Amino acid sequence: MKQVRFRDPAGTVRTGEWVEADGSPATTDIAGDGGAISSADRTYNPDDVDILPPSDPSKIVCVGRNYAAHADERGEDVPDRPLLFLKGPNAVASHRSTIELLPNKEKQEYEAEIAVIIGKQCRHVDESEAMDVVAGYTCMVDLSNRDDQDRETNWIRGKAFDNAAPLGPVCATTDHVPADASVELAVNGEQRQSSTRQHLIFSVPELIAEITTYMTLEPGDVIATGTPEGVGPLSDGDRVSVRVEGVGKLTHTVTIPE
Amino acid sequence: MKQVRFRDPAGTVRTGEWVEADGSPATTDIAGDGGAISSADRTYNPDDVDILPPSDPSKIVCVGRNYAAHADERGEDVPDRPLLFLKGPNAVASHRSTIELLPNKEKQEYEAEIAVIIGKQCRHVDESEAMDVVAGYTCMVDLSNRDDQDRETNWIRGKAFDNAAPLGPVCATTDHVPADASVELAVNGEQRQSSTRQHLIFSVPELIAEITTYMTLEPGDVIATGTPEGVGPLSDGDRVSVRVEGVGKLTHTVTIPE
Repeated sequence: MKQVRFRDPAGTVRTGEWVEADGSPATTDIAGDGGAISSADRTYNPDDVDILPPSDPSKIVCVGRNYAAHADERGEDVPDRPLLFLKGPNAVASHRSTIELLPNKEKQEYEAEIAVIIGKQCRHVDESEAMDVVAGYTCMVDLSNRDDQDRETNWIRGKAFDNAAPLGPVCATTDHVPADASVELAVNGEQRQSSTRQHLIFSVPELIAEITTYMTLEPGDVIATGTPEGVGPLSDGDRVSVRVEGVGKLTHTVTIPE
Repeated sequence: MKQVRFRDPAGTVRTGEWVEADGSPATTDIAGDGGAISSADRTYNPDDVDILPPSDPSKIVCVGRNYAAHADERGEDVPDRPLLFLKGPNAVASHRSTIELLPNKEKQEYEAEIAVIIGKQCRHVDESEAMDVVAGYTCMVDLSNRDDQDRETNWIRGKAFDNAAPLGPVCATTDHVPADASVELAVNGEQRQSSTRQHLIFSVPELIAEITTYMTLEPGDVIATGTPEGVGPLSDGDRVSVRVEGVGKLTHTVTIPE
């Protein structure tokens, strides 16, 4: 199932299922805005509603350098345990949004990620049971302001600014997303990142076990599993799209104020 | 006014005013659990209710090394701009709570802080208008797991673990808290930290202006302004109390599991 949160034309927030245009369950990978949304006994055209982030996280726990080729391109070693950092709820942004980046920065970059959405409150989760607390997967962009990230101790100005975590378009249950699911990012239609989940240094169960050693995860919380190689800078007006196999495609546009 | 959130004996969450035992407004500094709580037309004995954290923050923005003498005792330089880090809502703990620290760590320490509670949603706040977005002040302890903090890039295991931010007991409006308000911490009744707000390197308005350059603050969000010198380790069963002049005294006990 591919669950989608949306605001209907009357303004009500609803949860529905993203289906094929004929109303059958989505079995193919829905790229972009195809298909329809089925909610209760109604069907909505995705173009007539506001697609909301697939959950309302109390926190986004992010993982740095979780693909060796990306650590390498940033000139960093692969960590011996997950490199964790946090974004708050202010970082969330939705599918099809226009995101204002920070003014007066030299380098603000995209980072495509496979994100995990947590389904139940949990702490001290064993690796062997970790998939039980997963509601599903979505796409995320870890927008990064390198000017500040590279000169601060904790990546707050660099990574936790408003709307630095576009999420969506759906929460796809784990059966949709293969172990070797691809993750790809394009800027203005040109592919910039392409890898698969098999290149993760720390797997999703390993991440959940490690994070919940220290903190409780809540339903809707997000774990961003890291970005592969190919990160690069964004310019005013760029259109960014991330596709995770089995989930679909998240798109947003960035603007940079004068 | 000293506002207190609490759960009444029937289980209802209420907001009231902490007053003198005779019902008059609290003008003296209420240390500990003296006084009474006035809510709507009722008066509650603080011993009969659960005192809740004074707000329900979406994020806690913390400031590191904001007192020169503390930076010095940690062997660190004073930063040229605020050193920011984040704790999520999982870090909140309440007055009079028992907090389970992490097992198998060599050094987990207390850090007393004056905390700011935000009163309205805000971004891009000018220093000159920053106090307009402040609901008031409270006491906080920035519980710190040095074993991990000292070997991770972002202080997640070190600072963002569950209940690492006890908050309370009240939100005191700014008129109660003088510019040179003292902040003191005691362990088992023995004083360990004592300083005043005048030693802050970056002032509250400077912190609000800097943080809101990057992120939106929400009502209830907390800014922890940093700790003075005198930090030290905690042992199983220690009773910690923080007193901020004009706010009152926050107390909690720590346990360390085997």
